[in-house]
Amino acid sequence: MDPSSPVLPSSILEQTALQLGCSPTDKKLAFHLDEKDELKHLRECFYIPKVKDLPPTDLALVNGEESCVYFVGNSLGLQPRKVRTYLDEELDKWARTGVHGHFNGQRPWALADECILDPMAELVGAKRQEIALMNGLTVNLHLLMLSFFKPTSRRYKILLEARAFPSDHYAVESQLQLHGLDVEKSMLLLQPRQGEETLRTEDILAVIEKEGDSIAVILFSGVQYYTGQLFDIPRITKAGQKKGCLVGFDLAHAVGNVELHLHDWGVDFACWCSYKYLNSGAGGLAGAYIHEKHSKSIKPALIGWWGHDFKTRFLMENKLQLSEGINGFRLSNPPILLVCALHASLEVFSQTTMKTLRRKSILLTGYLEYLIKHYYSEDKANPEKPFVRIITPSQIEERGCQLTLSFSLPIKYVFKELEKRGVACDMREPNALRVAPVPLYNSFRDVHRFIEILGSAITSSKQTANNTVLSGSY
Amino acid sequence: MDPSSPVLPSSILEQTALQLGCSPTDKKLAFHLDEKDELKHLRECFYIPKVKDLPPTDLALVNGEESCVYFVGNSLGLQPRKVRTYLDEELDKWARTGVHGHFNGQRPWALADECILDPMAELVGAKRQEIALMNGLTVNLHLLMLSFFKPTSRRYKILLEARAFPSDHYAVESQLQLHGLDVEKSMLLLQPRQGEETLRTEDILAVIEKEGDSIAVILFSGVQYYTGQLFDIPRITKAGQKKGCLVGFDLAHAVGNVELHLHDWGVDFACWCSYKYLNSGAGGLAGAYIHEKHSKSIKPALIGWWGHDFKTRFLMENKLQLSEGINGFRLSNPPILLVCALHASLEVFSQTTMKTLRRKSILLTGYLEYLIKHYYSEDKANPEKPFVRIITPSQIEERGCQLTLSFSLPIKYVFKELEKRGVACDMREPNALRVAPVPLYNSFRDVHRFIEILGSAITSSKQTANNTVLSGSY
Ligand SMILES: Cc1ncc(COP(=O)(O)O)c(C=O)c1O
Ligand SMILES: Cc1ncc(COP(=O)(O)O)c(C=O)c1O
Repeated sequence: MDPSSPVLPSSILEQTALQLGCSPTDKKLAFHLDEKDELKHLRECFYIPKVKDLPPTDLALVNGEESCVYFVGNSLGLQPRKVRTYLDEELDKWARTGVHGHFNGQRPWALADECILDPMAELVGAKRQEIALMNGLTVNLHLLMLSFFKPTSRRYKILLEARAFPSDHYAVESQLQLHGLDVEKSMLLLQPRQGEETLRTEDILAVIEKEGDSIAVILFSGVQYYTGQLFDIPRITKAGQKKGCLVGFDLAHAVGNVELHLHDWGVDFACWCSYKYLNSGAGGLAGAYIHEKHSKSIKPALIGWWGHDFKTRFLMENKLQLSEGINGFRLSNPPILLVCALHASLEVFSQTTMKTLRRKSILLTGYLEYLIKHYYSEDKANPEKPFVRIITPSQIEERGCQLTLSFSLPIKYVFKELEKRGVACDMREPNALRVAPVPLYNSFRDVHRFIEILGSAITSSKQTANNTVLSGSY
Repeated sequence: MDPSSPVLPSSILEQTALQLGCSPTDKKLAFHLDEKDELKHLRECFYIPKVKDLPPTDLALVNGEESCVYFVGNSLGLQPRKVRTYLDEELDKWARTGVHGHFNGQRPWALADECILDPMAELVGAKRQEIALMNGLTVNLHLLMLSFFKPTSRRYKILLEARAFPSDHYAVESQLQLHGLDVEKSMLLLQPRQGEETLRTEDILAVIEKEGDSIAVILFSGVQYYTGQLFDIPRITKAGQKKGCLVGFDLAHAVGNVELHLHDWGVDFACWCSYKYLNSGAGGLAGAYIHEKHSKSIKPALIGWWGHDFKTRFLMENKLQLSEGINGFRLSNPPILLVCALHASLEVFSQTTMKTLRRKSILLTGYLEYLIKHYYSEDKANPEKPFVRIITPSQIEERGCQLTLSFSLPIKYVFKELEKRGVACDMREPNALRVAPVPLYNSFRDVHRFIEILGSAITSSKQTANNTVLSGSY
C-alpha cells in the first residue's frame, strides 16, 4: 500500500476478513496478516521484552512468558540483537590494540561516524555529504540554529508549533534571547484552531504567506511528538522558501518512521535523534543535515578540530581548513560505542526500504485504528460506554505509525491496568495514551492483543476507580 | 612522595639502587620498585594489549606474548575490564525491559550521568553540583564560553597559549568571530620566550598583569598536550581574577593525571574529555564545571529540556524552570553506553586517591627522566652520539606523567622501530616523541623496557636511515 494508493487500510482489512470468512475483529485476521507480512523476519533482529520482565507486570493477570506488546518505540526503540556484537568488536579492538583502534579495524574510531553515513543518509533521503552523526539532538538543533537564524530588523521571527517538544521550544526561546530579541514578539507560535488538536496544513501555509516576510526561520517537527501528526514537509518548505524564510525540521519522530526526501524537498536543515525509531539506545548518537545548496555559504558559528578537513586535521597547525557543509559543524571526535549501537540498527533498516516499511506501517496502524473505532467509538445512545477519540489525523499522509488516543475516562487507571498486563505504551494525563506499532518489530497480533488487553484494562480500571472512590482519599 | 616533598625522584632512585647494591640503570631496580608499588594491583583492572596484537609489531624482533609498553594513555587510555560488564548490565536491561530502563535498575538512563557525578567530582576537586557529564569536550568548551565570554568595548580579549590544542584555538577564534571581534586584536597568544619551549609562570602572570584590564577570559590548558607542561592553575586563576578576568581551563590532559582542586582554587569554569587518563574509550563522555559562586548568575546561552529542573521536566509544559549552575547547561538526554564505560574507569580511581596516584606518577616519570638523561644526554665531546632533550619541565610541580622528548635525529625511523618492538607512544615530526607512563596501569618495568627498546630502535633506525639514503629516492 502506497501512501498515495487509493485503497484504504479499512478496505483491505474488510476484504481480507471476507476472504477468510471471519469478522475483521477476529484474531484470525491478525494471524493471517502476520503470515503474509513480507517484513515479519525483521522482528527476529530485535530483543522483544517478555511480559514477566517488565517491572509493572502483575503475573496473576497474564502469562509472563509471552512477549510484551511494545508500543512505545516512539519513545525508545527496542534493542537490535547485533548491538552487542558490534560493541564487542570495538571493545576487543580497544582491549587488544589500544590507541591503534583509531585507524584500524571495522570502524576506525577516528572515522567511526563516517562508517555509517550511507545507510543514515538513505533513511532521510539526503546525500552522504549532507549529513553528520554527532552529539545529541538538542545540541545539533542549536548548532544549526546558530548558523541559520540570522535575524535582521525586518526578518527576525521564528515560526514553530505552539506545542513543540519542550527542547525545541527552549532552543528557539534561547536563540532569540541570544540575539537580544523580544521573545513575545519574535516567537510565532502556531495553535490548532479552537476545538481542534492538530494543525491544518492550510493554516500553516496561510500564516507563512501572511507573516513570511518577517520570519527568518521556520522550525517544525516532522512528526509531532504528542499528536503523531506528520506535517507536509515539502509544502511547508516550499511555502517558507518562497517567502524568503529558511526552513528546518526536527525529525525525532519522523526518521525511521516515515519516508523522507530531505534533499529532493530542498529542506534547508534538519536534525534528529536515534533512540526512538532508530533503536540506538538511550542518549544515542544524533544526526544533522544541511542541504548541499548551502554547503559553501552556511558556516558553523562554533568551530572545533573535528570541523577541520581530515587531510590536515592532525598536523595541529592551528590554521583552520574548514570542511564544507555540515561536516564543518563537527566539534568533537565521535563516540565509538554509540556508533556501534546505531550501526546495528541501520543494518536492519538496510534489509528493506522505507517505502516497504511504510507500506506495512500504514496497514498496521490502520488496523489499530480500525479496531479502536470498532470497539470504542462514541455512542450517544449509551453515554455510560467508555469511548476513545483518536487525536492523530485519520489521513494516512498526515501521520506515521503512532496514534494518540484520548479517553473519555481518566487514563491513569487504564494505563496502570495495561501495564500490569504487559503493554508498554506512553501516558499523558489527564486522558491521553500514545501507542506506536512499529513496523520493524511489531506484529498484527500485537495490535490485536493490545485491543483485547485494553478491554480488560478498562473494565478493571473502572473497578479500581470505584474502589478508590469508596476507600476515600488516596 | 609529595609534589611538595623535598626528596627528588633521582635521590630516591639512587638511594634505593644503593640499598639493592645495583646501578640505578639495572632492571633490578625496576623490579624492586614494582614490588613495592602499593598501586600495582590496579594494572589488573585494565586490558594491557599484547605485543603481537599491535598492528605495527614485527614478530621477528620481539616476543609477541609479552604485554606491550603502552605509553600513550595521554591520547587514549586502556580499557578497564569492567567496561564490558557495565555495558552488559545496561544492554540486558534494554533487551529485557525496553523503555522501563529510563527509571529502573543500576543506572536509570534518565539519570545515568548523575549516577557517576560523585567519583568524577572527586577527581577534579569540585562539588557534585558544580559539574556535569555531557557531550564532547569541544562542545562543552563552546557552551561554557558562550556564557563566560561577554566582551565589552573595554574588556574583549581572550588570553590563551600560542600553541593551544587546535580545537581550543578554533573555539576561541570562532567565539571572537561570533561577537564580530577582530581576531588579530582580540586573541592574545602567549608564546614561550625565544629559544624556550614552555611558558614561564612569571611571564604568564606578567601578561595578565599588563593586559588584564582588556582581557575578558583567560583560557589555559591544565596540562599542555604537546609539551606536557602543568600550568599553575591556582596562581593563574588568582592573578586573572584579581584583574577582573574570568579564568577557565581545558583539563583534557590534566584530569586523572594530576591533583585538581577546582573549587578551592576558585577556578571559574573548566571542561575535560574522558578518553585519555580517564580511560572511557574513543569519544567518551566529557565533563564541564562551573564554580558554585556563579551558580545563580551565570546562565546557559543555549537551552534544552535537560536543563529544565528534573521535578517538572517531564510535564512538558514549555515553561522553563532552569536548573542552577552547570546543570542548566545540559541540553540532551545522556548516552547510557558512554556512562557505563566511564563508570568502569571511575571505579578504578575510587580504589585510590589522586594524591596516592600522583605520588607514584612522580616517581615513575622521574625514573623515565633519570634513564633518558643517563643514556641520552648531549655529549659535546662525542657529537655523533644521538641525544634526547626533554621538553617537558624538569620541575615536578610543572608536569604530569607525560614527557615530551626531542631527538637529535629524525624521529620517524626511531618511532617505526619502537612500534615494531611493541612500544605504543606518540610521534610528532620532525623530532618529538611524547611518552606517558600512566600510574594506573604502567609499571617501572615498562619504563625500563622502553629504555632498552629505545636503544635498539635508535641503532636500527640509523641503519634504516642509511639504507634509505643508499637506496635513493623514497
Ligand atoms: C587539550 C585538548 N583539548 C581539546 C581536545 C578535543 O577534544 P574533543 O574531540 O573531545 O572535543 C583534545 C583532544 O585530544 C585535547 O587534547
Ligand atoms: C521532537 C523532539 N525533539 C527533541 C527531543 C530532545 O532530544 P535530546 O534529548 O536527544 O536532545 C526529543 C526527545 O524526545 C523529541 O521528541
